Amino acid sequence: MISPELLKELLRFRKERDWEQFHTPKDIAISLSIEASELLEWFQWQTHQQIEQKLQSEKREQLEDEVADVAVYLSYLCHDLGISLNDAVTKKMHKNAAKYPTEKVKGRADKYTEYS
Amino acid sequence: MISPELLKELLRFRKERDWEQFHTPKDIAISLSIEASELLEWFQWQTHQQIEQKLQSEKREQLEDEVADVAVYLSYLCHDLGISLNDAVTKKMHKNAAKYPTEKVKGRADKYTEYS
Amino acid sequence: MISPELLKELLRFRKERDWEQFHTPKDIAISLSIEASELLEWFQWQTHQQIEQKLQSEKREQLEDEVADVAVYLSYLCHDLGISLNDAVTKKMHKNAAKYPTEKVKGRADKYTEYS
Amino acid sequence: MISPELLKELLRFRKERDWEQFHTPKDIAISLSIEASELLEWFQWQTHQQIEQKLQSEKREQLEDEVADVAVYLSYLCHDLGISLNDAVTKKMHKNAAKYPTEKVKGRADKYTEYS
Repeated sequence: MISPELLKELLRFRKERDWEQFHTPKDIAISLSIEASELLEWFQWQTHQQIEQKLQSEKREQLEDEVADVAVYLSYLCHDLGISLNDAVTKKMHKNAAKYPTEKVKGRADKYTEYS
Repeated sequence: MISPELLKELLRFRKERDWEQFHTPKDIAISLSIEASELLEWFQWQTHQQIEQKLQSEKREQLEDEVADVAVYLSYLCHDLGISLNDAVTKKMHKNAAKYPTEKVKGRADKYTEYS
Repeated sequence: MISPELLKELLRFRKERDWEQFHTPKDIAISLSIEASELLEWFQWQTHQQIEQKLQSEKREQLEDEVADVAVYLSYLCHDLGISLNDAVTKKMHKNAAKYPTEKVKGRADKYTEYS
Repeated sequence: MISPELLKELLRFRKERDWEQFHTPKDIAISLSIEASELLEWFQWQTHQQIEQKLQSEKREQLEDEVADVAVYLSYLCHDLGISLNDAVTKKMHKNAAKYPTEKVKGRADKYTEYS
């Protein structure tokens, strides 16, 4: 995902604005949730066909901005809490493979709680 | 953030479960929002002090799982829509620097709309 | 929506559990957002057809529970901040009518910022 | 909460704009989540003290607008799906009382899954 140099940029950006004081883990989590919602808002009311067209239009940039915002807060959170994203995702994918064995879930979208 | 190999893992995981059919961009955006909310839920009702302790406990792993879930859906979305996360973040940080010039915003948390 | 008697029940419920201490306006807003996300999760991955069927099934009750959770936190917030929901909605509907005049928006889902 | 007359207003508002076509249950749920997030955004980065002051300022109206938006989508959803909010909340409060018996949870904010 984002490079080490870009992460340095993010850290410098908030430091030179004296914004670290606002970045408690809870407040970053709030902001991450708000940005994920703004990302979803780009798709609001749209049918899949309209989305296809919107993705080819000048409005695509708004979506990329929201994707960036989510990534930025995720980066701050992982950095501040010392979370390695690769390790976290690797571990979670192992859990997912156990929760959703291929032979049971192939082609089905049910949540794992639906499987006895 | 996540490595190219890990991304391949994510793509293989959903392919072998025949889950690509469910991954419309809109539905991935919905899932990303849901996971960001579950991440926020880890902090629900907690004071900053309680969060400090929770981060040192065995409950830290739950948070890392939610961080992973957000990263997974962000990865699927960027891959499927051909969005380069580095490019998107770099572009957005330039916009943020213009929206929030250091001399104006240093030490202040107001949204840019608060500045004339 | 909810009756005055039911609101009294909600207030008694949190008082007898000594939970008022956790209900800062910010924390109620966090919880409201979390519940709205759980409500959305009931629809996750579902096509409109599958939703039709799910609404006729025993799983409908889960959705009603999430609707209730959202209403409960909205009730606590309005009560604690002295917000009259009828007044707030009436005022907002007037603003919406001005932002979205019928002749301009009929049959269109664009956000008001799309209209010059 | 909102009166029957006000609900009639909401229904008339969307009908005269020919917006019912966009109000699938899933899309209303998406919008409800987005508005709950905008409500949370009003509190973003604020300490409890700053929130106290903000509630006494002219910015209070923005919060009331977001509260209204959440209530509006909740009203549309309940109306369209034939959900009685009073019944749903009454039922959920009974479940909550069982999940969180006073003697066990008094003064504690843990989720019910924390109690054996």
